Amino acid sequence: MSEARGVAAVRRAVAAWRRRRETVAFVPTMGALHDGHMSLVRRARAASDRVVVSIFVNPLQFGPGEDYRRYPRPAAKDRALLRAARVDLLWRPGTADLYPPGERTRVRVEGLDTMLEGASRPGHFTGVTTVVAKLLDAVAPDVLWLGQKDAQQARLIEQMVKDLLIPVRVRRAPTAREPDGLACSSRNTYLKPRERTQAAALARGLARARAALERGERDAARLRQLVRRTWRGFPLVREDYVALVDAGTLQPVRTVRGRVLLVVAARIGGTRLIDNLEWGPR
Amino acid sequence: MSEARGVAAVRRAVAAWRRRRETVAFVPTMGALHDGHMSLVRRARAASDRVVVSIFVNPLQFGPGEDYRRYPRPAAKDRALLRAARVDLLWRPGTADLYPPGERTRVRVEGLDTMLEGASRPGHFTGVTTVVAKLLDAVAPDVLWLGQKDAQQARLIEQMVKDLLIPVRVRRAPTAREPDGLACSSRNTYLKPRERTQAAALARGLARARAALERGERDAARLRQLVRRTWRGFPLVREDYVALVDAGTLQPVRTVRGRVLLVVAARIGGTRLIDNLEWGPR
Repeated sequence: MSEARGVAAVRRAVAAWRRRRETVAFVPTMGALHDGHMSLVRRARAASDRVVVSIFVNPLQFGPGEDYRRYPRPAAKDRALLRAARVDLLWRPGTADLYPPGERTRVRVEGLDTMLEGASRPGHFTGVTTVVAKLLDAVAPDVLWLGQKDAQQARLIEQMVKDLLIPVRVRRAPTAREPDGLACSSRNTYLKPRERTQAAALARGLARARAALERGERDAARLRQLVRRTWRGFPLVREDYVALVDAGTLQPVRTVRGRVLLVVAARIGGTRLIDNLEWGPR
Repeated sequence: MSEARGVAAVRRAVAAWRRRRETVAFVPTMGALHDGHMSLVRRARAASDRVVVSIFVNPLQFGPGEDYRRYPRPAAKDRALLRAARVDLLWRPGTADLYPPGERTRVRVEGLDTMLEGASRPGHFTGVTTVVAKLLDAVAPDVLWLGQKDAQQARLIEQMVKDLLIPVRVRRAPTAREPDGLACSSRNTYLKPRERTQAAALARGLARARAALERGERDAARLRQLVRRTWRGFPLVREDYVALVDAGTLQPVRTVRGRVLLVVAARIGGTRLIDNLEWGPR
């Protein structure tokens, strides 16, 4: 596995592969890699000739009170995981590679970025779409791999790629989970033992909702209620939101008809966790 | 000269040239081509193997009360000019190629887009940078040619290209002018004969300011005054702004030190015209 820091080094590596007609997959991450990331890397590895992974804790997507500084950065462990997974290139840009002084361009996917995570984290998605636009222009991959865990983020990036005519195919991989169902997240490491136990509530609520959907339940209020009722057994879980939205528009629905997203966010102690269930015809 | 409408056709043409290692220059326009556009095309023609010109009257950069509908669209004349100039590919996207239903991504160069033209035309530059981001992702040229006539626009696009790591070299060509100095513009065709005569005031004011700069004048207020005094002899010219700004930040300066931009905008009858003078060390 080779490593790059500057944009020029990444471009050189990818250009060399292109000349040999090799296909290039790209997995952008913030590091602190877990099974969720590694399942993306494995899929990328299986489907393309070359795999590029970036690790960049993007300051622009953190709000003022958020965990940018304490966000985990286990560089050696991340590197070992990626090497073992036969990644071709690890790109670890410095902040000044992506945000040099005077930098001021912002990419927004309007109308999908202010609800749900966007409502709880103002400016978050502008940070996400802006940095992903930069990363894609630097790497110029054939395929971009995203995780279903961050469903709204994936929806926004897919829309951005389509709208800006960025020549890349976007693929989503399913959420990787711990044995008790908890969605893999770099932030799970913040949880104290009791909190970690109760964090299973998020996945458990979604599992109940899925079962109800499969039994034919179509009423959004009842599905949300099912999640909240499940959470009542877990007193450390404080709801941020439980929403049933159209998977395309992210607008709330009252009745399940097309493809929907049941999205949840909660705080447990000082940690904010999210999870979701996407359901229905494509 | 071949012609394309859809994005896929443009990509196919450019990909074929790339395989032969040919370099590609791109000149985005809104059509109604004049000597200003054609001087860009000639420079592009001289410096690259292949030249792509787009013609697209971009609805997103027009305000509600502006001239989107009546903007001139002389398709046959434009085509003949480009053919005579040995352009390789004319791309005339349809509105739905660049703004299909549901499209909602916007690119903004913050802090450079709200003053001068941005103040007079709210949202204008978001329209410009958004459409240019799309055009660049579709064409993927080696070189992008812009006109100095739209200096603020060129400044914003250069910043966007740098910030988003778009792999293209941006070049500016000097403003083309009529014999009396009037900067070439598609909107000049709106001018009635008396208005056309008085429109020379813009260039004449800038010429006086240039002479003063060359004599050593460094005071911004006096330079602006010189422009306004010149305009007094042209009663049809109504000032929108006369500003002396830093060429990089577009912030007003009181004394000329580094590279500056003397930018002017005025209405003559129902027509709004702009012009500028860039001056000083790079």
